[in-house]
Amino acid sequence: MNYIARQKRMEAAVQDKGLDALLVTHLPNLRYLSGFTGSAGLLVVGSKRPMFFTDGRYAEQARDEVQRARVVVAKHTVIDTAVEWLLDNDLRTMGIESDHMTVAVRAQLAKKLRGKVRLSDTSGWVERERMIKDADELALIRRAVNLGAGLLDVAIDTIRPGATEVEVAAQLEYEARKRGAEGMSFETIVAAGERSALPHGRATPTAIPERGFVVLDFGVILAGYCSDMTRTVRVGKMSEADEKLYNSVRQAQQAATEAVRAGIATGDVDAAARKVLTHAGFGKYFSHSTGHGVGLEIHEAPRLGRGQTESLRPGMVVTIEPGAYIPGRGGVRIEDMVVVTPDGCEVLTPATKELIQL
Amino acid sequence: MNYIARQKRMEAAVQDKGLDALLVTHLPNLRYLSGFTGSAGLLVVGSKRPMFFTDGRYAEQARDEVQRARVVVAKHTVIDTAVEWLLDNDLRTMGIESDHMTVAVRAQLAKKLRGKVRLSDTSGWVERERMIKDADELALIRRAVNLGAGLLDVAIDTIRPGATEVEVAAQLEYEARKRGAEGMSFETIVAAGERSALPHGRATPTAIPERGFVVLDFGVILAGYCSDMTRTVRVGKMSEADEKLYNSVRQAQQAATEAVRAGIATGDVDAAARKVLTHAGFGKYFSHSTGHGVGLEIHEAPRLGRGQTESLRPGMVVTIEPGAYIPGRGGVRIEDMVVVTPDGCEVLTPATKELIQL
Repeated sequence: MNYIARQKRMEAAVQDKGLDALLVTHLPNLRYLSGFTGSAGLLVVGSKRPMFFTDGRYAEQARDEVQRARVVVAKHTVIDTAVEWLLDNDLRTMGIESDHMTVAVRAQLAKKLRGKVRLSDTSGWVERERMIKDADELALIRRAVNLGAGLLDVAIDTIRPGATEVEVAAQLEYEARKRGAEGMSFETIVAAGERSALPHGRATPTAIPERGFVVLDFGVILAGYCSDMTRTVRVGKMSEADEKLYNSVRQAQQAATEAVRAGIATGDVDAAARKVLTHAGFGKYFSHSTGHGVGLEIHEAPRLGRGQTESLRPGMVVTIEPGAYIPGRGGVRIEDMVVVTPDGCEVLTPATKELIQL
Repeated sequence: MNYIARQKRMEAAVQDKGLDALLVTHLPNLRYLSGFTGSAGLLVVGSKRPMFFTDGRYAEQARDEVQRARVVVAKHTVIDTAVEWLLDNDLRTMGIESDHMTVAVRAQLAKKLRGKVRLSDTSGWVERERMIKDADELALIRRAVNLGAGLLDVAIDTIRPGATEVEVAAQLEYEARKRGAEGMSFETIVAAGERSALPHGRATPTAIPERGFVVLDFGVILAGYCSDMTRTVRVGKMSEADEKLYNSVRQAQQAATEAVRAGIATGDVDAAARKVLTHAGFGKYFSHSTGHGVGLEIHEAPRLGRGQTESLRPGMVVTIEPGAYIPGRGGVRIEDMVVVTPDGCEVLTPATKELIQL
């Protein structure tokens, strides 16, 4: 990872905005800029030299991991040590990450700084950099996506009428761990039968019925990067209406994927999926957005939702995941991760979208 | 759960402070006061009638779960719907949860309220109520603790030289799921050999050595409530020095447990553990606090750390978890959950603290 280039881009942004520094507190942003993977630290960028503050628990780890920045281990609290340095080094204006810092922490920080450093609320500075994945990140994301996709067969092997949703999730998560995942990137969704109509139907002790869809939505974390995929499989016979539902979602997913290219507005990708589902009569059952960025966090910028105007750029990694959910009957969602290229996109998720019938 | 009593206590607190309402946004607080288990909602308490705002995804769930409060499903965003109601109902002053609301959300909210509702930063109002567990909560916590403690044998069955830490964690988490856990309450720690000297040594692909301690720190979530326990087991022969280390931590854990009773300062419980370890020569290796509250969150108030002055009260549920970590050699931690009683405490965690040698 080119941490130095990342830090230098942030230094330029800080200068551009006329600030002396930016205080980075959001852990994924901290990791992105410094390489630190622990859970307690502060990074000051934009000052003469980047400074990294942590506590005794992370002293060794910070010295190993943190790139370029000077590491200072707090004797008492991390915030007090950072404040002392800021005051000693005569900083006058510092940005804070307003999307992540709580009101209470900001007030505490302002009080400790005694008016000598003016705080300025910033939003999304590091997140905007993180939207575009570099080659090192893409390599890690591919590994996470491949590990995740390999778990689909594990889930399918456990799905049968009478097995519970949570058994399927347990087996999938067990294999994820055994294959090296650091954890799941979100709570595994296994939603069977009528429950497949719940867009967020995390696995419960409910038994899989004789007939119905089973929505499987899951992801792993590997080397800090998240994967995210959804497939909907079928148990038992299928009505023509259900077949139409599945095929419509599949066509919507394909239309949205084909719409992806550098320069297109995220809202237009969403519209491509929505158009297919609306024409098929399922428009009102598509109750969420078409996708979102994925990287160090499972939900990142950009968002691919109705009316969004952000343009896609090469190197963005996003999900394409339309769905349709009919209360009392069932639902279907199909989701891939794709990386935006100048002329289109590359689908990262290596798994069939043909309906799997069990 | 007596949600009505909880809401009424918050209404009294709001009145006491001269506010018209409190806006509850922290999900565990929302669940505690309303019963809602979803992940998008806002509760306004203290106004004539408690109001609960959520979005379309949670409409059905909110109507099922939310107690007493009127449920309003947002047409567009939850915050806009809540703001509209606040302005229509002529509220003038409203508390916000400053420990949980971000600077950006507060600014957005203030802007939408156009100066007509004055925001007041509050801290810990609901958390203070949550410190004391009622009988219904204690019953759920006991279930979570028992499920969690039953997993120790699963872990022990998988521990052998050459097995990896992550295999042990995977097996433990798989069984947790199969036995009904909704998830783990934090990232499972399996730290073997020299890695046992890391207080936060989450499971890695490292193999368990022929000789050394293995620290197992894990917990489950059941019906929303967390469990948390640590045991340290031994593989291979043990030196006298290691035996002394184990016994000292065990004695420190016992001394702290015996110090627990209603009225004692949390810092004095910490001091009881620290005194034993200091006398044994391990004081400087005990690098964290003795414990913390547990409930709907894995880390809650109160904190049992050096110099803390909060008094324990009956019904508080806290961990007692001293440890000692010698870099390059290894570490030991032993942790139970206890509930504070008028004269002492009841240890909830049903597992031996005799050293298990494998």
